[in-house]
Amino acid sequence: MLYLNRQDVSSLIDFNELIEAIEHSMEIYDKKQFMQPDRIKVNVSDSETYLYMPCFTEQIKGTKILTLSQGNSKYNLPTIQGVMLLNDPKTGTIDCIIDGASITGYRTGAVGAAGIKYTSGENCRNLGIIGTGVQAFYQAQYAAAVRDIENIYLYNTTAGKMTDFAKRLKEKLPKVNIIPTVSPAELVKKADIIITATPSSTPVLPDDAALLEGKHYIGIGSYKPNMHEYPESIYKLLDKIYVDVDFAKEESGDLITPCEKGWFREDNIQTLYSAVKSNSINRNKTTFFKSVGMALFDIFVAGKIYKKALEQGIGQRINQ
Amino acid sequence: MLYLNRQDVSSLIDFNELIEAIEHSMEIYDKKQFMQPDRIKVNVSDSETYLYMPCFTEQIKGTKILTLSQGNSKYNLPTIQGVMLLNDPKTGTIDCIIDGASITGYRTGAVGAAGIKYTSGENCRNLGIIGTGVQAFYQAQYAAAVRDIENIYLYNTTAGKMTDFAKRLKEKLPKVNIIPTVSPAELVKKADIIITATPSSTPVLPDDAALLEGKHYIGIGSYKPNMHEYPESIYKLLDKIYVDVDFAKEESGDLITPCEKGWFREDNIQTLYSAVKSNSINRNKTTFFKSVGMALFDIFVAGKIYKKALEQGIGQRINQ
Repeated sequence: MLYLNRQDVSSLIDFNELIEAIEHSMEIYDKKQFMQPDRIKVNVSDSETYLYMPCFTEQIKGTKILTLSQGNSKYNLPTIQGVMLLNDPKTGTIDCIIDGASITGYRTGAVGAAGIKYTSGENCRNLGIIGTGVQAFYQAQYAAAVRDIENIYLYNTTAGKMTDFAKRLKEKLPKVNIIPTVSPAELVKKADIIITATPSSTPVLPDDAALLEGKHYIGIGSYKPNMHEYPESIYKLLDKIYVDVDFAKEESGDLITPCEKGWFREDNIQTLYSAVKSNSINRNKTTFFKSVGMALFDIFVAGKIYKKALEQGIGQRINQ
Repeated sequence: MLYLNRQDVSSLIDFNELIEAIEHSMEIYDKKQFMQPDRIKVNVSDSETYLYMPCFTEQIKGTKILTLSQGNSKYNLPTIQGVMLLNDPKTGTIDCIIDGASITGYRTGAVGAAGIKYTSGENCRNLGIIGTGVQAFYQAQYAAAVRDIENIYLYNTTAGKMTDFAKRLKEKLPKVNIIPTVSPAELVKKADIIITATPSSTPVLPDDAALLEGKHYIGIGSYKPNMHEYPESIYKLLDKIYVDVDFAKEESGDLITPCEKGWFREDNIQTLYSAVKSNSINRNKTTFFKSVGMALFDIFVAGKIYKKALEQGIGQRINQ
């Protein structure tokens, strides 16, 4: 059995390989060649949640197990911790245990990047990111792997939080200009691609169709019905909304609310995979890709990382 | 993070310590000082099941994750494989990963032994075991830890299976006579304590009240409604049936069927812990302890093993 910690995973990452793994898993999803029970969630207390996310396919089987402990900053520990167990698909033997927070971060970044790859113009050079948390950090790096990004504009309601983020991101992307902004309006104006990665319950973008038009939006933050990052006026600019998985319609406030309020027709929401396959995405207009993620993506990303670890002799061997 | 494999666990086992851990967890159970969602079961195919068994208390939190792969004998691998994850109860950090099949075996053995300890006479010297699978092997060793067993009588419908079992058991218990029998009737006649550890769907004991009377029965095998190890006549010999957990009444055919058919009154089923506490067990009469197990027992057994591993410096250290 192999154990891959955060550093191991980090050393094995090739953004484009993982985006390919996501594209492959999106195909498996569309073809329904997987078995995935509903996400299993145990609220142990108001601040402590345990999540079990199994997924099974012919080629790969595994389970991500995460704890979300809200009070962990006082122990200098991350909120999200856990592991991904990868099983031999024939025998069930656990072949590999991988740091679960890393898998979550890298796969969500890869899903966002798949969105950018297929919904934004190839000449887009200006990225805006609203929210500067852990996920924003992954998204920024992935975006730079699929587009020749020259400028990254940042916005956070707490301006101070941008400084450290900008510094860390500059280390990862030394050739890119990292530019804090003073308002979402400024950010939208300057950016071609806008990633939203906040837990906000009210829209983080201005409700201004003229400002929002013609840009490419990647919605990462909202994964619950009460979470909203997008304002009403954006929906009138869109013919389609692309999603990573169909059930995003039932999970994200950014899809539930506009359908309920009549701002958007639910049957104009379709998976990115199906839209790419039918070559129907118009990148010259406003686009919106909304992701909520699923365990299927985790196991394919984890499988790719495990395979590379074996090839490169990375990780800690455990005698079972 | 510490990893404890099968050999590590085996080297750390003190049967009486684990029986104490079970007694403590039975108290936690009776006082309802735990949170345990229903066991989560994913049938990936007819021969492949994934089980997730989380349990949370103030002192200890963890999840056992098992795969049951029926076809594994052809790969020379066990049917049951998996791990137990033990989390820091405050922060959720995984402190220890333990071989899950070992935990299952040792805790089930410890629960059976707690039954023997409190329901059988202290002078019982003759043990009978029906079924000679993995679980029977644990049960036999535990029984010898709580009673001065001189003879162990074995019965298996496939006589050949007893030979290897008897040989392996003799290595563990060199002072004890290990004696195969030709029928359950012979076994019951010779034994004082009878452990049943089979997956049978029809009774494995003769339906003969005179033969069955005055003995102490430990039912381990039946954990589903369609599994029955005990015949009708035993129920008339019993005032009470003791169980490890209340929901055994809903899970085991050995309790569901007699209540449905009117052979036994459901309100005469009570937890072993409550019966011990009220000092109400008459060990001079026929007794029956029925166990189905629960994740709460697993986490306390795992916690005890982890604590000892730390004290003795056993296990493989993993850099997280």
